Amino acid sequence: MISKSDIKFLRSLREKKFRDESGLFLVEGEKMVAEALAAPGWKVEAVHRMEDIGREAMERISLLNTPSPVLAVVRRRSLPEPESVPAGLCFALDSVRDPGNLGTIIRICDWWGIDTLFASPDTVELYNPKTVQATMGAIFRVKVVYTPLPCLIDMYGSAGVSVYATSLKGRPLDGAGLDRERALVIMGSESHGVSPEVLAKVESHLLIPPFPEGASTSESLNVAVATAVMAYEFRRKL
Amino acid sequence: MISKSDIKFLRSLREKKFRDESGLFLVEGEKMVAEALAAPGWKVEAVHRMEDIGREAMERISLLNTPSPVLAVVRRRSLPEPESVPAGLCFALDSVRDPGNLGTIIRICDWWGIDTLFASPDTVELYNPKTVQATMGAIFRVKVVYTPLPCLIDMYGSAGVSVYATSLKGRPLDGAGLDRERALVIMGSESHGVSPEVLAKVESHLLIPPFPEGASTSESLNVAVATAVMAYEFRRKL
Repeated sequence: MISKSDIKFLRSLREKKFRDESGLFLVEGEKMVAEALAAPGWKVEAVHRMEDIGREAMERISLLNTPSPVLAVVRRRSLPEPESVPAGLCFALDSVRDPGNLGTIIRICDWWGIDTLFASPDTVELYNPKTVQATMGAIFRVKVVYTPLPCLIDMYGSAGVSVYATSLKGRPLDGAGLDRERALVIMGSESHGVSPEVLAKVESHLLIPPFPEGASTSESLNVAVATAVMAYEFRRKL
Repeated sequence: MISKSDIKFLRSLREKKFRDESGLFLVEGEKMVAEALAAPGWKVEAVHRMEDIGREAMERISLLNTPSPVLAVVRRRSLPEPESVPAGLCFALDSVRDPGNLGTIIRICDWWGIDTLFASPDTVELYNPKTVQATMGAIFRVKVVYTPLPCLIDMYGSAGVSVYATSLKGRPLDGAGLDRERALVIMGSESHGVSPEVLAKVESHLLIPPFPEGASTSESLNVAVATAVMAYEFRRKL
């Protein structure tokens, strides 16, 4: 059984205000709940099953078209900004606003073994329900750190580690001359690309070349799609 | 001015039943409308501007959160199945159900110069409003042909043109030994991958390798993301 006020509270977690107040967020579906329960560093506060609380309550709480048999209430966590440049390949997002894109990008990072994803402070919230569900559980494996990108780039610069930014005016990506072992790759927002302030701080600008090369680049790619292509290129065997 | 019954009719086009009856679909936004007007082979039946019909009417008709200043009513077109294997690189989708994924994949085809996209008959409808808007106008440049994939594969086989299917059990994609000039690449559905009947007809199964290689492939990639990586690999300069 579940009380009316519990249902109301769980339902309120679809709004950022109430997630901020409570420090909690919801994950839905058997796979997501199993991943949350198994994830080190994440605290599951409660699990609710349709079998226990009934279909009607589940439908009230759920954001899915068809509510899943189970959901979990998970405590948010905040990650400290790193004091030094992380090992390996990292990505950073500049002002990505679409929650589905952010979630898909976290899933992409998980596939290609990218442990840390940086995001500018104006990037959409990690705990937006659409972001959470789009990660398909990768939210529990990839560290997402919100931090101003200019300072991050300075930190990388001081450490002598390569920084790349994607740009429609960049050098066509062809696999040559990339630092693949340790680098930061910055992806721009859906509508505006990487911001001019950030671009100005980065020397290496890369373009995912259209085909045939030199075809109009007035169009652009979805930011999640572009992130996947960059991750594939940086990670592929030469 | 616009009559109440016109608004009702335009609003009805969000449902497949009424798109099928009328043979029409809506595109929203200045860019989409401009592309529709400029596209050879597509007939624009009407253009409505918020300036003329008013905000309230536009809000009634529009599917967007914020209605755009302009929308167009466009006639659907049906493409004959090809009688022979098209030149160049083509992709095919097996049972892709998410309209946003289909739209994003059409945009991907446009970027990488893939003129024809095949889709199994149970793939989501091309004229679903979410598909149309996700193409960002690429719907007017990429030919989408619904056809049973087994027959298509037979046609490719008879012509001696290579067919590839993506599979979590495939050979890791590493760029070696691919026919890049003329081929068909089959992508599976979001939840089930390429169907067993189709896989059985195709010799070359390809996996987008996770990193580090051999990492768990119990997870999967979004089908649009996977399509972009395959398109990038087939199109990149060697």
